[in-house]
Amino acid sequence: MAVNLSPPDPASLSPVPGVELGFAEAGIRRRGGPDLMLIQLAPGSRVAGVFTQNSFAAAPVHVCREHLAARRATRALIVNAGNANCGTGARGFEAARRTCAATARLIGCDAREVLPFSTGVILEDLPVDRIEAGLPRCMETLGADRWADAARAIMTTDTVAKGASRTVTIGGVRVTVTGIAKGVGMLQPNMATMLAFVATDAPVAQAALAAMVREVADGSFNRVTVDGDTSTNDSFVLVATGRAAIGEIADGRDAAYAALRSCVLEVATLLAQAIARDGEGATKFITIGVRGGTDEAEAARVAKSIANSPLVKTAFFASDPNLGRLIMAIGNAGIRDLDASRVNLWLGDVLVIDRGGRAATYREADGARVMKPEEIVVSVDLGRGSGETTVWTCDFSYDYVKINAEYRT
Amino acid sequence: MAVNLSPPDPASLSPVPGVELGFAEAGIRRRGGPDLMLIQLAPGSRVAGVFTQNSFAAAPVHVCREHLAARRATRALIVNAGNANCGTGARGFEAARRTCAATARLIGCDAREVLPFSTGVILEDLPVDRIEAGLPRCMETLGADRWADAARAIMTTDTVAKGASRTVTIGGVRVTVTGIAKGVGMLQPNMATMLAFVATDAPVAQAALAAMVREVADGSFNRVTVDGDTSTNDSFVLVATGRAAIGEIADGRDAAYAALRSCVLEVATLLAQAIARDGEGATKFITIGVRGGTDEAEAARVAKSIANSPLVKTAFFASDPNLGRLIMAIGNAGIRDLDASRVNLWLGDVLVIDRGGRAATYREADGARVMKPEEIVVSVDLGRGSGETTVWTCDFSYDYVKINAEYRT
Repeated sequence: MAVNLSPPDPASLSPVPGVELGFAEAGIRRRGGPDLMLIQLAPGSRVAGVFTQNSFAAAPVHVCREHLAARRATRALIVNAGNANCGTGARGFEAARRTCAATARLIGCDAREVLPFSTGVILEDLPVDRIEAGLPRCMETLGADRWADAARAIMTTDTVAKGASRTVTIGGVRVTVTGIAKGVGMLQPNMATMLAFVATDAPVAQAALAAMVREVADGSFNRVTVDGDTSTNDSFVLVATGRAAIGEIADGRDAAYAALRSCVLEVATLLAQAIARDGEGATKFITIGVRGGTDEAEAARVAKSIANSPLVKTAFFASDPNLGRLIMAIGNAGIRDLDASRVNLWLGDVLVIDRGGRAATYREADGARVMKPEEIVVSVDLGRGSGETTVWTCDFSYDYVKINAEYRT
Repeated sequence: MAVNLSPPDPASLSPVPGVELGFAEAGIRRRGGPDLMLIQLAPGSRVAGVFTQNSFAAAPVHVCREHLAARRATRALIVNAGNANCGTGARGFEAARRTCAATARLIGCDAREVLPFSTGVILEDLPVDRIEAGLPRCMETLGADRWADAARAIMTTDTVAKGASRTVTIGGVRVTVTGIAKGVGMLQPNMATMLAFVATDAPVAQAALAAMVREVADGSFNRVTVDGDTSTNDSFVLVATGRAAIGEIADGRDAAYAALRSCVLEVATLLAQAIARDGEGATKFITIGVRGGTDEAEAARVAKSIANSPLVKTAFFASDPNLGRLIMAIGNAGIRDLDASRVNLWLGDVLVIDRGGRAATYREADGARVMKPEEIVVSVDLGRGSGETTVWTCDFSYDYVKINAEYRT
């Protein structure tokens, strides 16, 4: 029961010249359905990615880093759902490499030109035979208009497929940005894994693309949190095929860089928000804006302390304007010299905490009114400086417990 | 439905010479029952405390710190349940001071010789009139054998009153340590507040008592976590009345210090564990031991990452040996150079993760067997050094959501 989220209309996901996607049912995910997805990239495409900081990063994450570090072209991304290939030791590395080799044979490239991704159950061996058997079907189904199918093939506990597409005009030429994602979170993700794949036909130099993927991750996926946990497989990859007829975007000083980044950020933000809207058991989508921090990092600490507090999240589930828990969560962010008497907080448009205490104008009925809708905005002013940020999250419901207590059983 | 926890038998809570306790129903807590508790201390008693690090620390916490800093004697502790007197601004300070003054008048001491404590709803004004009206009844009921009554009078969402008592022989003299607590957590506490009051009749110098309360807090209350949140009112106070006929314990080099500390730690640990056993919605009591860290702090980071992960906690609720989530939580503790291939993990006596991967000997049936009981032990060896610690927590159930979604509504 995702919050105000529908699967993307396939027609709304614009093809990106130089990108083709295929899928297959390989029998990896227990509940069946397509679970193998191939993205084939035209020669000359550039790829950059950011990956989980979890110390138990899965084998495919290590192999991705290795292949990207080899500074070869990337010709394909191969993704399976249903098995994370994590905690699988040397066998896991071998399985990820075999997956790349099998893909490379079909495409006719070097195995190091393939990036592998896995999501699903941890500590179980990846059934590479099934992946090898499913790959030909992925090749048969390859098409530029398969983004929606691809989004479905990488789902695990997602209830809604996630995709978004935007265009931007650069030098008079229309450039496309299309992306898909699965899972819940990044740096602060949920049960299995967040995977996101975003592609553009703009030509972007490698260093500029590497900078852009980090900046966009910080402005989108790193601002979404479901339960504060971090998965072993999280990956966000940005592809630039270079097929659009504009000059190569060389670096961040290029005006076209800002224009493209803004468009990529918009797509990534929609995908990140979709992840929170589809958070396990979510009944509310919550936007937490914090301003007045000494810097952005301080504002982010406060926003995430609110967003990750189980007590705050259960209060959102109950539509309960429980100001005490919000106060507690702000105080819990580890700002030692916070002056409580400078802190203001709004629920929607209602001032509820005025200089650290309950606002004189606050009426419980107003709080109840703004807590009722499926979308709630919390705004905090710390009164310390000009650092600000926004974080998106969801509430904590009975169904969160149900989904996570029953996932494997 | 606390896990293997019964209210203390009043006869098991030994009087501490120099300590008398009284209680009253002052009408502060909505559900009724005794909600005001007074601890009167004989002249010459020494008191030391540790308090919440939350930036929105409640007015009574500030007043406690102020009164302790004044280095006067402490003659009484006055505690109310039902209202936390937090986020109440200048009125809150005034209310805490009026509470102390009223208590001081009845006892015949200076207001600075009274320490105030509050627990309950946040952001509502403390009804001091009701406290003043209830105080005479507290005086009438004063008695050395009122520890169990006192434990009941400070409960909020606790389902079971918490108390423990032990003795230790020092220099041939039997010394008593008795304590009570309420709530869930400290540094990592739950909904309202953790309050703990422990008293001994041993004579302890002020500096030694201040050291002991910190050391004991680190070894007991700071090792329990329910949901990772930190309340605005948490307080742990240690009282030494000095009535036992032994020489004053001057400092940590005194052999009697170690003996007394060990006894106080035992009582505080029982109280801390009681807090996790009575965690909101708890159905399991979980002990997480981590060894092999580079130091104790690193071991504690890993233990708390496991203990606070909602995904791990819901798996415990489901009695599901979900090794993947344990791996994820260890990897999530922020140890950048962790070598996953040196990590071992046991559930009970079953080795489940061997050098970073699933143990070859592991059978799902063995995992299911050790996850089934109400008490579960998780042991982790990080393989990095000799730092170790133990943390206690509980699981995350439907009832956690229910209790916290319905608390105010």
